[in-house]
Amino acid sequence: MTARATSTEKHPLAPTSATPAPPPLEQGALRVVALGGIGEVGRNMTVFEYDGRLLVVDCGVLFPEDDSPGVDLILPDFGPIENRLDEIEAIVLTHGHEDHIGALPFLLRQRPELPVIGSGFTLALLSAKCQEHRLTPRLVEVEEGQRSRHGEFDLEFFAVNHSIPDALAVAIRTPAGTVLHTGDIKLDQLPLDGRLTDLAGFARMGSEGIDLFLVDSTNAEVPGFVTPEREIGPVLDSVIGRATQRVIVACFASHVHRVQQVLDVAASYGRKVCLVGRSMVRNMGIAAEHGILRVPEGALVDLDEALQMSSDSVVFVSTGSQGEPLSALSRMARGEHKQISIQHGDTVILASSMIPGNETAVFGVVNGLVRLGAEVVHQGSAKVHVSGHASAGELLYLYNAVRPANVMPVHGEWRHLRANAELATLTGVQADRVVIAEDGVVVDLIDGVASIAGRVEVGHVYVDGLSVGDVGESTLSDRLVLGEGGFISITVAVEAGTGRAVSPPTVSGRGFSDDPKALDEVVPLVEMELSRTEAEGITDTHRIAQTVRRTVGKWVADTYRRRPMIVPNVLPVGS
Amino acid sequence: MTARATSTEKHPLAPTSATPAPPPLEQGALRVVALGGIGEVGRNMTVFEYDGRLLVVDCGVLFPEDDSPGVDLILPDFGPIENRLDEIEAIVLTHGHEDHIGALPFLLRQRPELPVIGSGFTLALLSAKCQEHRLTPRLVEVEEGQRSRHGEFDLEFFAVNHSIPDALAVAIRTPAGTVLHTGDIKLDQLPLDGRLTDLAGFARMGSEGIDLFLVDSTNAEVPGFVTPEREIGPVLDSVIGRATQRVIVACFASHVHRVQQVLDVAASYGRKVCLVGRSMVRNMGIAAEHGILRVPEGALVDLDEALQMSSDSVVFVSTGSQGEPLSALSRMARGEHKQISIQHGDTVILASSMIPGNETAVFGVVNGLVRLGAEVVHQGSAKVHVSGHASAGELLYLYNAVRPANVMPVHGEWRHLRANAELATLTGVQADRVVIAEDGVVVDLIDGVASIAGRVEVGHVYVDGLSVGDVGESTLSDRLVLGEGGFISITVAVEAGTGRAVSPPTVSGRGFSDDPKALDEVVPLVEMELSRTEAEGITDTHRIAQTVRRTVGKWVADTYRRRPMIVPNVLPVGS
Repeated sequence: MTARATSTEKHPLAPTSATPAPPPLEQGALRVVALGGIGEVGRNMTVFEYDGRLLVVDCGVLFPEDDSPGVDLILPDFGPIENRLDEIEAIVLTHGHEDHIGALPFLLRQRPELPVIGSGFTLALLSAKCQEHRLTPRLVEVEEGQRSRHGEFDLEFFAVNHSIPDALAVAIRTPAGTVLHTGDIKLDQLPLDGRLTDLAGFARMGSEGIDLFLVDSTNAEVPGFVTPEREIGPVLDSVIGRATQRVIVACFASHVHRVQQVLDVAASYGRKVCLVGRSMVRNMGIAAEHGILRVPEGALVDLDEALQMSSDSVVFVSTGSQGEPLSALSRMARGEHKQISIQHGDTVILASSMIPGNETAVFGVVNGLVRLGAEVVHQGSAKVHVSGHASAGELLYLYNAVRPANVMPVHGEWRHLRANAELATLTGVQADRVVIAEDGVVVDLIDGVASIAGRVEVGHVYVDGLSVGDVGESTLSDRLVLGEGGFISITVAVEAGTGRAVSPPTVSGRGFSDDPKALDEVVPLVEMELSRTEAEGITDTHRIAQTVRRTVGKWVADTYRRRPMIVPNVLPVGS
Repeated sequence: MTARATSTEKHPLAPTSATPAPPPLEQGALRVVALGGIGEVGRNMTVFEYDGRLLVVDCGVLFPEDDSPGVDLILPDFGPIENRLDEIEAIVLTHGHEDHIGALPFLLRQRPELPVIGSGFTLALLSAKCQEHRLTPRLVEVEEGQRSRHGEFDLEFFAVNHSIPDALAVAIRTPAGTVLHTGDIKLDQLPLDGRLTDLAGFARMGSEGIDLFLVDSTNAEVPGFVTPEREIGPVLDSVIGRATQRVIVACFASHVHRVQQVLDVAASYGRKVCLVGRSMVRNMGIAAEHGILRVPEGALVDLDEALQMSSDSVVFVSTGSQGEPLSALSRMARGEHKQISIQHGDTVILASSMIPGNETAVFGVVNGLVRLGAEVVHQGSAKVHVSGHASAGELLYLYNAVRPANVMPVHGEWRHLRANAELATLTGVQADRVVIAEDGVVVDLIDGVASIAGRVEVGHVYVDGLSVGDVGESTLSDRLVLGEGGFISITVAVEAGTGRAVSPPTVSGRGFSDDPKALDEVVPLVEMELSRTEAEGITDTHRIAQTVRRTVGKWVADTYRRRPMIVPNVLPVGS
């Protein structure tokens, strides 16, 4: 193929898994490696290394998709630093979202005294989470404008706005150079709490010289600017204002400013607010304690009170905006909620985004509510949600303020990272100084130049129920097979010495067919096969099992054109 | 709750499953029931009954979502007419999409000589499909403007435009009144083939009097108007024009006008076109034969030729725009396609919508392509797709042209149906004459008034591999359990007379854990339990199995907090 001269082409190529392990870190150099969050949306965790010491920024979880069935959470892979936990100076949390703090308890289990740095609200959310894990983390509270030194890592914090209050960006000064990490960021110029992203501070850092700029990529593909959060208020006002019955607003349990606007609008129509959902109640409690959520005296009622009130005097604020099947909202949509039954004329507002992959679940909830007679207002029909992440237009402001020497797009899938890289180069960053380094790719900053030094292995670490890490790729691939086709088990007892079947084979399927006779035809085939193995003097139960598996597998493929898992159990019994 | 006077409220409520079976159809009345397609997007099939005779409009499939794992297709439920197939006068196909014709072979298996009415291109697509099923349908070709009488059903056909050529709406005149069914419809005022939706014909029918208007609801929630298809041409021109390497365009295999525009643009840049994917090659062949796709002499090359050509002289047009894992495009994105390997600087255009539920798969493909260095242009980044369904603005034109007495929104989930109902009432249709009747709900048109007469049971009929209907809700619910948590099987042989275990219990899991020792602890518990049952003289293998299931289930819930399927196999062997 002919070469093409575009800016894209000069970006370093995607490192393959053949990329070698990195060499030892050069004296005086800074190393950066993400253990999660680059090449995906979630489980953000970046490790910085200087002179044998580590600094970690964020430690979040990823919520599983269809390819990890049954899994509750996915953690960053601590593997590459597992033997170096004592070398960690501190961990910085940029804000309190699950994809930035959710995995920290799993790290703290291994090193409980690790200093955890963050803003007041972020640390309060972390503490609540740690309580569930029976951990008491060592907290170092900071705020914007403050500096904090940890070994050779000299930190400075900057206010940024995002879809949760009290978010911070962090500058990391080291002898090898200065890094600026945006965390999750947007540039709402009229933030509800008046706390602007500190673009002036970023510009000052830029004048000082930023050697490596790590930038949130989530919305890099989206042109323009995010609408200010406060523009949702009037929309809520109009919807709640015309409602004559119950109003239910679903949103993320950490979106304090969204809830604030609901509280304010509800008050203006003389409605009380009832918070529904454990995490909603907990987080808003913390926010109120921190003075971040302003709750007028008597504005909140609990569920029992709310149920006693007339339908036009209450607004429910609930979790479940992503269609989670066990959430209160999903149960209402199915008509299965014990206390709240949707009535014709009720209004439901989904004041939230739709996380990719959740569309079917969310629309399932919408359809259920509509079917019961509710009017449902969602992102698709009214401006009831704005993103928490800078769009392309805002990212350009960031690049122009900071004028970084090297850029490393973070927080995003490949499409987001690539789009973010394009924006960097458009503002004048040299294309070969924009390093797309997915999870595990090691970037070294040496003499002011960032480049890929190698790759360490990082995998997905799955949490399923109480245990961490025992569910891996083999279990998941079995689940995918079982989930698609079920299984057929063939159980037979054979005489240990002779391999003679001493019971008729039991053939049964689960997840295979509703027809009780579906497998009848294969039984004689299995019996024939068992006679053959006996005649051939085969006594090894594994070999017998294998031949049974082959026989049944071929039969089911020919007869049904399906691929269930075939599970032979050949039991040797004393002869 | 207080009553609220809005137009919504007056629509008949969602019929519950408690709605009784309908009474026998009154003499001189018309009955309508959907066996699929209302309350969902897909498997469209509507049955009209007059004087003991039936007319069917469309017979399509639904593609399964997460709640029907492993299923290939979902059919309309023929149950309510199963014993009345001889009473069907004819089946009308409005157009050739799978969700309108895909289930017909399954109906024709039961009544092969059923007359099938449709336009030339629609019937050609049906014939190709029937060939795969070794069926030769009895075809009745019609075109717009034509009338065709089948018993008491007097049909008239109208040109409509949609995302496939040669689509028709159908008016059904009966002694009980006249029905107009839009099929899938939009009102592109500059259609690529100049074939406008016959709004004038609709208006004429309206003047004659439409008693019941069945209207496509798919885009009723979307305000405004669909952009004309031809506006995609210049976008393709700009993307393909600046490409210096390979271009791959993915779109639906039936979207003749989209492919036409790619052919035209490719020709203007001196590129040949290579069609990739069996259905793409087949459908475009049929379209070319019917003069619907204009292929300039020598414009097409086959894959072998294309691979020999320089990368700037070919455009591939491929299926796989929905992220189907086995499609050519997905294999390219994973670097697993045998012949086409994506090179840095290649351009991929996803000229298609993203069907809800497919987002994760589609973005997976986009990320894979971007990671390999391709530039990917998709609906989110450029106007490379327009919908085939009328938006709200267009639907208003339809209602105003037809001025129907009664309306029945079709083709859509509840949210779409409700939005469509609102549009009807806004144009002046009486709210209580807008009947939202999901699948199975029977609507009778009596003396010019449509109303719900009852409900017949309709379920989902699943096709999995070669068989139809043997996979049902019980199998699917097992698959969901297995897919989330795998299973643990416990196999033990017991002496038939005594219940004494004659083999040590074998405990093994699939889809449960990667840890080979994960289940070790439960073995002694099972052995204890077996000793207990033996001591209690329990010899019934079902009872033994049940107690084993309980023991293991409790242990796994306590130890792992997981819910795998527990599968005990207790084999009686001769004492």
